[in-house]
Amino acid sequence: MTKRVYNFYAGPATLPLPALEKAKEDLLNFENTGMSVMEISHRSKEWQNEMDAADALIRDLMKIPNDYQVLWLGGGASTQFLMTAVNLQVEGKPMEYINTGGWSSKAIKEAKLYGNVNVIASSEDDKFRYIPKDYNISDNAAYLHITSNNTLYGTEWHHWPTPPSDVPLVVDMSSDLIARPVNVKDYGAIYAGAQKNLGPAGVTLVIVREDLLNRVPENTPSMLKWSIHAEKGSMYNTPPVFPIYMCKQSLQYWKDFGGVEKIEKLNREKAKILYDVIDQSDGFYKGHAREDSRSLMNVTFTMASDEIESKCVTEGTKRDLIGLKGHRSVGGMRASIYNAMPIEGVRALAEFLTEFKESNQ
Amino acid sequence: MTKRVYNFYAGPATLPLPALEKAKEDLLNFENTGMSVMEISHRSKEWQNEMDAADALIRDLMKIPNDYQVLWLGGGASTQFLMTAVNLQVEGKPMEYINTGGWSSKAIKEAKLYGNVNVIASSEDDKFRYIPKDYNISDNAAYLHITSNNTLYGTEWHHWPTPPSDVPLVVDMSSDLIARPVNVKDYGAIYAGAQKNLGPAGVTLVIVREDLLNRVPENTPSMLKWSIHAEKGSMYNTPPVFPIYMCKQSLQYWKDFGGVEKIEKLNREKAKILYDVIDQSDGFYKGHAREDSRSLMNVTFTMASDEIESKCVTEGTKRDLIGLKGHRSVGGMRASIYNAMPIEGVRALAEFLTEFKESNQ
Repeated sequence: MTKRVYNFYAGPATLPLPALEKAKEDLLNFENTGMSVMEISHRSKEWQNEMDAADALIRDLMKIPNDYQVLWLGGGASTQFLMTAVNLQVEGKPMEYINTGGWSSKAIKEAKLYGNVNVIASSEDDKFRYIPKDYNISDNAAYLHITSNNTLYGTEWHHWPTPPSDVPLVVDMSSDLIARPVNVKDYGAIYAGAQKNLGPAGVTLVIVREDLLNRVPENTPSMLKWSIHAEKGSMYNTPPVFPIYMCKQSLQYWKDFGGVEKIEKLNREKAKILYDVIDQSDGFYKGHAREDSRSLMNVTFTMASDEIESKCVTEGTKRDLIGLKGHRSVGGMRASIYNAMPIEGVRALAEFLTEFKESNQ
Repeated sequence: MTKRVYNFYAGPATLPLPALEKAKEDLLNFENTGMSVMEISHRSKEWQNEMDAADALIRDLMKIPNDYQVLWLGGGASTQFLMTAVNLQVEGKPMEYINTGGWSSKAIKEAKLYGNVNVIASSEDDKFRYIPKDYNISDNAAYLHITSNNTLYGTEWHHWPTPPSDVPLVVDMSSDLIARPVNVKDYGAIYAGAQKNLGPAGVTLVIVREDLLNRVPENTPSMLKWSIHAEKGSMYNTPPVFPIYMCKQSLQYWKDFGGVEKIEKLNREKAKILYDVIDQSDGFYKGHAREDSRSLMNVTFTMASDEIESKCVTEGTKRDLIGLKGHRSVGGMRASIYNAMPIEGVRALAEFLTEFKESNQ
C-alpha cells in the first residue's frame, strides 16, 4: 500500500487519487499506442482525441456556451496577467481592477504597462481580510478584473460584480474554478492556472467570449494573442501535453463524481467543519478573513504567537497533515481544501486542531 | 510486458525508458512524501532539491560556466522567439538572423515587432536544403540568432558562426540540445523546448550569460524578463513541475549513460545507418538535405510519388515503426532519431526500408 498523506498545500495541491492511478497505469502505454502520452506527437489523432475530450469535459462541467472559446496555454496564470491587458485593452478606456490581495496586485502591476488602470476598490486597508462591496464601475471601462478567491488571505467573492453590459468581467479563477457553479455568460473571460482545482502546474485554462478575440492589436507577438491560440485549437505551438492530460483525468473524475453542484455541496461541508473549529475555539484560533468574505478553498487563521503556530505545524506534520504553514508574505496558518481534498482529511485536521487546542491553551 | 513501439515522431518524441519507469514508480509517492510530485508545493524543500538536481545535471552534462544562468520556463520555445528580442534588443542596433526554415522564420517574424531585423543569409532559395556558409555579421548587431537543427528540413549546423566578440550568438537548440558537445561560452544564450531531446513538452530551458540580463527595458512585463526568472531561480511563478521533473529523470539517465561525447558518438552511428540506406538506394530514397548539411536528428527523404511514400508509412506502422510521415508543410518522409531513440530502432527501420525498396522498386 502506497503511503499517502493529507496535503493542505495551497498549490500545487492534492489531486484526485483515481486520476493519479490512471496516469500511473497509462504511463508507458497511452491508449495502447506503445508510447507514453509524453512521447506521442501532438499532431497524432490519439492526442487530438485527448484534447477534444478535455475540452468537452470542461464545457460540460461548466456549461460553457458555444460562443466561448476554451484555450489550454502554457506560461501560468502570471502570463495571463499581461495577456488580459494585451488582449482586452481598448485605447482611451481605463482598465478597472479590484484589489483583493497579492494576485490582484500582480495583475494590476502588469496591466499598468499597457495603459491607464483604475483600481476602483481595495481591501488593503484591512490586510485584505474582506471582499469590497462598495465600488463604481465606469461605463467606459475596457474591462473589470477581479480575483475570485485569494489564496494568501483566505477570502472569496460570494456576490459577483455586475458591470455595465459593455464592460466584460474578467476573473482570475485559478483557485476556485469548478469549486462552485458559475454562469459563464456573465463573464467576458475566465482564466485559471491548473495547479489548485484542475490538475498539475504547467497549464492555464482560458475561457473567453469569441467577440472579444478581435480586440487584440495586429502587432502583438503571436504567443500573446488569445485569437491565435483559439484559431489553432490551442496547438499553435506544442501544448503542455502531460499537464493537459492530467487535467482531463481529473475532469473525468469530477464528471463521474456528479458535477459542480455536488462539488460545491461537499466544499461547503468541508469548509464548515474547519470554520466551526475556529469559531468555537474561544479565540485560540483566530480566523484571518471576515466572516462574510471567507473562502471555501483556503482557511486562514492565526494563533497567539509564532511559536505556537510553528508547534502546530510540526505536530500536524507528524500526523501526516502536511502544508499548514501560511504563505510567507502573510504568516499564520492556512489549510487549503480544494475540490480534491477528501472530507476525511478535513475531519482529521479538525480533530487534530481540537486536540491541539486542548493540550496547548 | 508493456507494448512499446519505435517512435520516430519529431517531437514530442521518444523518452529514455528508465526515465519513464522511474516516473511511474514515483507517481503516487514522490521521495516518500506521500504525495505525487504533481501535488507537492513548489516551495517545499523536496521540490527545491529536485530543481537543484535538474540544474546540476544540465550544468554538468553541458559544462555550463558559472557566469551563465539556467532557467526552466513555461510557454515553449515559441515564447522564446519573442523573449529573445525583448531581452536582447538594443535600441538602434539591428537584430541579425540566419533563416534555415520554418522555426527560424517564426523567430524572425516575432523579432520584427521589436525593431530592425537583418536576415543576413537564408537557404530558402533551395527549399532550405542547406545551411548557409556565406554571410557577414554586422559589428554593431544586437545579436545573431540561428536555429541549430531544422526538424522540418533535416538540416543542422556543423560549423558554428563566429560573430564579432561584442555580438552574442543566440541559438535555438530545441532539437539538438545535448545531442553533441557545445562550448557554452561561445554563446550569449541557448534555448530549447524540452520535447525533443530533453523531456516532455511544457518546459523550455534557457541558458543565458549573466551580463546579458541587464539589457531588458524596465517597462517589460515580468513574465517576459529573463532577469526576473533568473533572480527567482525559475520560481517567480509556479514552474511546470512535472515536465521539469521528467527532464531531471532524463538528464540523470544521460549522465549515467556517460555524457554528451558518448551521446554524440551514438547519434553519429545511428544517423550513418539511415543515410547509408538512402545513399545506397540508387535513388529510390532521395535525401532532402544536402550532404554537408545533414541533420543527426531528423533524417528527411522523399520517394518517387506520394502514393509510394504513403504505402511506406503504412507498412512501417504495421511493423511498429511509428511517425515516419514528413511534416505537413514539407511532405515526404522523416525519421526523427533523437538521443533517446535506441540504435535497435534505427536498425529495425533500416532493415524495413531496405526490404521495402526491394519489394517496390
